[in-house]
Amino acid sequence: MSTRTRVARHANTVLAQVPATSVRRIGVGLFGCGTVGTAVAEIIAARNDWLRSTHGIWLDVRHIVVRDLGRERAPSIDRALLRAQVLPALRDSDVELVIEVIGGTDVAGEVVLTALESGKHVVTANKALLAKYGQQLESTARASNVLLRYEASAGGAIPILQTLRNALPGSAVTRLRGILNGTTNYILTRMAEDGLPFFRALAKAQALGFAEADPRADVLGIDAAQKLIILARQAFGVWLPEEAVTCGGIDHISLIDVDKAKAEHRTIRSVAEAAIENGRPSLTVRPIALPNDDALANVRNEFNALEIESDFAGPLFLQGRGAGGRATASAVYGDIVEAATAAS
Amino acid sequence: MSTRTRVARHANTVLAQVPATSVRRIGVGLFGCGTVGTAVAEIIAARNDWLRSTHGIWLDVRHIVVRDLGRERAPSIDRALLRAQVLPALRDSDVELVIEVIGGTDVAGEVVLTALESGKHVVTANKALLAKYGQQLESTARASNVLLRYEASAGGAIPILQTLRNALPGSAVTRLRGILNGTTNYILTRMAEDGLPFFRALAKAQALGFAEADPRADVLGIDAAQKLIILARQAFGVWLPEEAVTCGGIDHISLIDVDKAKAEHRTIRSVAEAAIENGRPSLTVRPIALPNDDALANVRNEFNALEIESDFAGPLFLQGRGAGGRATASAVYGDIVEAATAAS
Repeated sequence: MSTRTRVARHANTVLAQVPATSVRRIGVGLFGCGTVGTAVAEIIAARNDWLRSTHGIWLDVRHIVVRDLGRERAPSIDRALLRAQVLPALRDSDVELVIEVIGGTDVAGEVVLTALESGKHVVTANKALLAKYGQQLESTARASNVLLRYEASAGGAIPILQTLRNALPGSAVTRLRGILNGTTNYILTRMAEDGLPFFRALAKAQALGFAEADPRADVLGIDAAQKLIILARQAFGVWLPEEAVTCGGIDHISLIDVDKAKAEHRTIRSVAEAAIENGRPSLTVRPIALPNDDALANVRNEFNALEIESDFAGPLFLQGRGAGGRATASAVYGDIVEAATAAS
Repeated sequence: MSTRTRVARHANTVLAQVPATSVRRIGVGLFGCGTVGTAVAEIIAARNDWLRSTHGIWLDVRHIVVRDLGRERAPSIDRALLRAQVLPALRDSDVELVIEVIGGTDVAGEVVLTALESGKHVVTANKALLAKYGQQLESTARASNVLLRYEASAGGAIPILQTLRNALPGSAVTRLRGILNGTTNYILTRMAEDGLPFFRALAKAQALGFAEADPRADVLGIDAAQKLIILARQAFGVWLPEEAVTCGGIDHISLIDVDKAKAEHRTIRSVAEAAIENGRPSLTVRPIALPNDDALANVRNEFNALEIESDFAGPLFLQGRGAGGRATASAVYGDIVEAATAAS
């Protein structure tokens, strides 16, 4: 029988749908409801029908833990779910999946650690927490046999960690090189394209919500260094301390530097790089005047990008939105589906 | 207790290693041993120690099915595994995972369909087979409760399908736009950069192994159209027939066209595009003179690239090697690990 005839038997089979009776309801605790948390609540609601019909899973958000109960919220947020305390949500045995988008390391660290110790899967977007306590949190997750996922902690919407983990499994990654901080990239783009001096470009980034009131973590390269530690863990299998990153900021870059680069057909970018040198990981974040035909020189505004060099795949280049509620929520949601599938 | 103190307890936990006694041996049948098949055998061997220590899986290649037993092989290929017949390997009940890198739709179709019907997981790099029989093969895989994976069938080393499936799960993809054929991109790059006429650029591509002796599938856009059908399935959830693609080749592009584009600061590229228009998928492959600041205009030589636009993530751009044994084997291996994990 020819292949054509044999496969034709299956031609009219429709896509499998999960029968309604076998839907598994998974309780979710959402910690944090700022820009990212609000977008996460929205993407969960927007995708729940899809998740039910394809995976047989329905995500049931039971608690949204916030700092300020009185603050105005988007209409999409169900106010009946808002809680001012973390403990009731953490102790709810019906919560199997914790999503942490508070940021910082204090409350967030307590939430993530307690959740993992209680046998709950955790999805977080928290780069500072992972860079500081990643190794310990991963050990706890392993001991509790739950998933800890943090795709949104580095590279915004770009599926960097997933690519390193699933597309290049076991791959000998030799070098990572990227733009990991959207704020500094926005500032450098505005300096080069609009001739704005550093402090005016920074003020513009702040006015647009791309930079914090205290911009030091971005401008000094600390934010990019934390993300680089997370990428190095995935690429090289080892958690390095933050001090391992040689870190330079963009606060000293002047319009004179920018114009000089331009005259040499170059563009200044804050470049994060992790490579194996003499058998040891070497991590740096620093402004570099890149030739204009370098792919990273053409990454503009708040976008992030990463080049991955590995033994079999050759060079891969990934680019996408590095910040913003919806872009971050997209990365968080990929992790949510993986964790919910593990829980179901 | 502070977060720092609590997590410090876990600080010295080493990465979990799988004890040797719990290693699961998974029998593999490799069908095809040309450029790609040879590289697949090499990547399996190169990563097996890693796979054992991290996943507790050891891949045991039991058969390498080839057309010509007498042909010279790379030293990495164990000649004792070579078979000239497909049936013994397909009937071996110890083979749980079939890797198909024969190409074409006849023998390859029979191998993939029989393997799926026999309850074996299948990883294939075969775009022509998927574009023609994808729906039926997926139905068979579902009925047999096995995985059918085909990351390497589109975009070479770029993790396109995985990104659509796992990083953007349930995502409303609105548009895909990319360079999916390395041969035509190489030809167009050499025409623009070296001033070679079409037929000399084609001859150069053939001499370098980037183009087949019969280059029609590449040059007329058929290869890219098949890949686009595979991407559209993943993005829009529907298998479209090959006739659904409006397809234009690059065989009529002259140096006059190339020079005219250059004078207008444009670069000619063969662009594959899939979008939802008026609620229906619209698929095209055609040469377009792109503005030089379009990311696709800067994809050179045999590289592939894809832009993905979706509701939450915003634009994602992925670029990598579109062809070559090692790049393709890298994509195949990502699928192998997923299928082997499902089997174990």
